[in-house]
Amino acid sequence: MPNNISQETRQQIRAGKLLKPTCGLAPGFTQANLVVLPREYALDFLIFCQRNPKPCPVLEVLEPGSCEPVLTAPKADIRTDIALYRVYQGGKFTAETEDIKEYWNSELVSFLLGCSFTFETALIRAGIEMRHIDEGKNVSMYITSIATTPAGMFHGPLVVSMRPIPRDKVVKAVQITSRYPGVHGAPVHIGEPEEIGIVDLSKPDWGDQTVFKEDEVPVFWACGVTPQAVALESKPAQMITHSPGHMFITDILDEDLAVL
Amino acid sequence: MPNNISQETRQQIRAGKLLKPTCGLAPGFTQANLVVLPREYALDFLIFCQRNPKPCPVLEVLEPGSCEPVLTAPKADIRTDIALYRVYQGGKFTAETEDIKEYWNSELVSFLLGCSFTFETALIRAGIEMRHIDEGKNVSMYITSIATTPAGMFHGPLVVSMRPIPRDKVVKAVQITSRYPGVHGAPVHIGEPEEIGIVDLSKPDWGDQTVFKEDEVPVFWACGVTPQAVALESKPAQMITHSPGHMFITDILDEDLAVL
Repeated sequence: MPNNISQETRQQIRAGKLLKPTCGLAPGFTQANLVVLPREYALDFLIFCQRNPKPCPVLEVLEPGSCEPVLTAPKADIRTDIALYRVYQGGKFTAETEDIKEYWNSELVSFLLGCSFTFETALIRAGIEMRHIDEGKNVSMYITSIATTPAGMFHGPLVVSMRPIPRDKVVKAVQITSRYPGVHGAPVHIGEPEEIGIVDLSKPDWGDQTVFKEDEVPVFWACGVTPQAVALESKPAQMITHSPGHMFITDILDEDLAVL
Repeated sequence: MPNNISQETRQQIRAGKLLKPTCGLAPGFTQANLVVLPREYALDFLIFCQRNPKPCPVLEVLEPGSCEPVLTAPKADIRTDIALYRVYQGGKFTAETEDIKEYWNSELVSFLLGCSFTFETALIRAGIEMRHIDEGKNVSMYITSIATTPAGMFHGPLVVSMRPIPRDKVVKAVQITSRYPGVHGAPVHIGEPEEIGIVDLSKPDWGDQTVFKEDEVPVFWACGVTPQAVALESKPAQMITHSPGHMFITDILDEDLAVL
């Protein structure tokens, strides 16, 4: 792949030419969740992420007030290089917008968090099909009875994503995703949804319903929706995120995140 | 091993009965570096750690003002459960003390950072001898020409520790320490000290000189002295750390930190 495809894709997004979900764009490059919070919440939120590395794998924290992810996407601008943003005020969704320049100020701290696209690519490469991708749907996500470890004002339940895995490939799926602790890592639960407080697998809290084939096991991974859900519940004065599926594309290669 | 040996050891330390380095105490339990900073420096320092996970592997960040590491050593008291502390004011070493109650206030944030004792135990278990331990010495540490990634006010060179490894065991040493990213992880450099700015291996910046045997290669790991050295260089109004070798003993098992 050309090594500037991530930059080129960001430029197209910045120019408003790619107003769509980023799944499949700039293959091989790591995509990220965005959370922007006023500085007064930043220490608590970063401690929350440190205590909950599976749902909240931090790829980069920008300097307070900075718009440039100098480590993961130098020369990018966090205010313009995502196709669609969501603005929340006092815990309420107040706007969806194509750039956040008008909301910007020098007290904002931006967090880029790992996204499951990275490990899904690795699973597919290993011959484990991703049902929601094959069917053009969104992955099923659920609120669980597992509590995150609180930090300061931030607390709430763990949100998981679920993928059906053939019974004879469950071990392989654990091995492969264990290599990527920076993007949610190994599953948090295998089988029995009830044990983690999910009463009806056919009714996800976010995303689409997943159809199971014979001899498939539900496997649950910590989900990047968790930090947003938790941050929202604490009703910060302002919080900005990407819109679901419209991720920030970094210059980091998925393989750079692999351990062993 | 009894599973309360870490608590018992901390109680002995708290009672002043173990005023010595902690190497070899409570085997199997993870020991940690301590850094205590006023809250105004905490966000920058935590971002610094996030950007430099090899020298600064964060095990726990305590709530601002809290003395209890509720996640890694519940019921412990960070102010009394280390045998010996060092107090720095304005970047200057001003006191060495057996507890830090008189220095405590509600604005202090405590960081527990991983320590190489964990991976040294794993290396020894794999038949790779640790020269400095066998000789009852301190490991050799060096300031390198490798810059850490700065964050806010914090910046400075990477400090490494060096261990001589037989040439035919270098691969094994990389594999074993790669399993422990939470305690410095894989080496940062193998062989040629000059390439990372070390001009004379026989003159470490901290610790003792190491004698090499035939066919041994110097292998360098990121060192827990880095965050202290970097924090000190920025001259915070106050900073408290453990005294060298006098670590905080957690209830975490070394094996809990292993990936794969």
